[in-house]
Amino acid sequence: MIQRLMDAIREKKAPVVVGLDPSLSFLPKSLLCGESEKEIADAFYAFNRELIDATCDLVPAVKPQIAMYEAYGTEGLKAYEKTIRYAQDKGLIVIGDIKRGDIGSTSEAYAKAHLGDAFHADIVTVNPYLGSDGIDPFIDVCNQRDKGIFVLVKTSNKSGAELQDQTLQDGRKVYELMADLVSAWGEKSMDGAYSNVGAVVGATWPEEAGLLRARMPHTFVLAPGYGAQGATAKDLSGFFDGNREGVIINSSRGIIAAYKKEEYVAFGEARFAEAAREATIAMITEIRDVMKGL
Amino acid sequence: MIQRLMDAIREKKAPVVVGLDPSLSFLPKSLLCGESEKEIADAFYAFNRELIDATCDLVPAVKPQIAMYEAYGTEGLKAYEKTIRYAQDKGLIVIGDIKRGDIGSTSEAYAKAHLGDAFHADIVTVNPYLGSDGIDPFIDVCNQRDKGIFVLVKTSNKSGAELQDQTLQDGRKVYELMADLVSAWGEKSMDGAYSNVGAVVGATWPEEAGLLRARMPHTFVLAPGYGAQGATAKDLSGFFDGNREGVIINSSRGIIAAYKKEEYVAFGEARFAEAAREATIAMITEIRDVMKGL
Repeated sequence: MIQRLMDAIREKKAPVVVGLDPSLSFLPKSLLCGESEKEIADAFYAFNRELIDATCDLVPAVKPQIAMYEAYGTEGLKAYEKTIRYAQDKGLIVIGDIKRGDIGSTSEAYAKAHLGDAFHADIVTVNPYLGSDGIDPFIDVCNQRDKGIFVLVKTSNKSGAELQDQTLQDGRKVYELMADLVSAWGEKSMDGAYSNVGAVVGATWPEEAGLLRARMPHTFVLAPGYGAQGATAKDLSGFFDGNREGVIINSSRGIIAAYKKEEYVAFGEARFAEAAREATIAMITEIRDVMKGL
Repeated sequence: MIQRLMDAIREKKAPVVVGLDPSLSFLPKSLLCGESEKEIADAFYAFNRELIDATCDLVPAVKPQIAMYEAYGTEGLKAYEKTIRYAQDKGLIVIGDIKRGDIGSTSEAYAKAHLGDAFHADIVTVNPYLGSDGIDPFIDVCNQRDKGIFVLVKTSNKSGAELQDQTLQDGRKVYELMADLVSAWGEKSMDGAYSNVGAVVGATWPEEAGLLRARMPHTFVLAPGYGAQGATAKDLSGFFDGNREGVIINSSRGIIAAYKKEEYVAFGEARFAEAAREATIAMITEIRDVMKGL
């Protein structure tokens, strides 16, 4: 799977993933027919379809955040599942941002649910707090079905430091320990120079990015936090390998709610998808400029 | 909420929660009408109803593991939601074992989904890898709606040690750091002597139990791993406080698949619920014996 993602990034010349994290606060009013779970879920799906149509020629992948759908129960989760299918039909790779993690048969059930027939994402994010017992069942599914996972290593938020930045007796930070574990887990599912077991490292940590890139040479990185969470293009250089590859950068609100930003406000709410397209082009241009300088 | 749970434990004289983790491998054949997601989900719900009917006078709470339902997509999740409602109608407190964890508005969406109107559990389990940003939105909902959470501290599985048993530079184990964080978070939602912010500590760690009990004096503990995961009644003493309170012990397969165990095999598959009742009584008796010795 990771080679499929890398091929798609090369083809689009854009290591960028659009985060499909719909929320009532930036859903255009015209899409909403009522306040029931089903009506909100239908509006989310309509919103996503327009966003996918407006960006699918520009980017290799989308990343729906399942929590935003789960908030509206099984109706919301139907919209999540339909969004995955719609994006895949448009040729996009889908990263389900689910951050699941449990043990043994429970992790197996999650892997089956999300990479298998129920929600059929191509790649999902996974939480490593429970260790190998929680990761191995996902790796088995990666190998059986040509899928991928991104394991949380250093998250984009500040309070992630409460655990992740603690120093261990052997001198490593907790996130370095996790990087070493992820790198070792990755050997069980290699796909070319990179593994189907990738890592989540926030784009908000420019200094740690280079260190982690070196520490996990065959681990592809998903970097959230660009835009709304404060990371800028110049923070990204450390994430790339010698071939200017090895990372995909996510922006969610910065793209899907672009019509609310001053620079794109002229589009108005009705043309939210055009605003999203412009914001995507701007992000890709910024990142290409960074890559040229590497 | 934690006082409601403690009152229910006192009333039933049983610090025991039945884990409703249905799986095809131990679902009685007679409940299954076909192999579609809907048919399997309907069978899970029928299985749970009989289990709840057979144990609701004995225990204060049930703990459905959402992954087992999520494996069957939105149909499975409908069975999860209906199970919660059915158990609550029978007077039981429901602990949704969801182990969610994300940041800011995303954690807020999960809290709203699971403790709010979509899935309406009374208490849920939460993963702390992302720090306070991931926990605070849950605590807000606990305070607004009189709900509770159990935060993962030391999980019952062996490979949890890969992260949780690492020693920090200041001498604490990672799980001790997490215990200190959970204890501090708990001050934001006190409910009598205990907090609505509890901790998950595997029943498989008898030595650590006493240390963690002392380290988190106002943190109620959910202890999984009894039975199928190897913990026995004599491993439990460290979890109790001076009033023989402060913990609720979970058994899943040991109860719901009791009819497959040699001791209860005489019940046969058709009388699986009676076997579950007998196994629940046996577990409660064992735990009461431990408590008498404290």
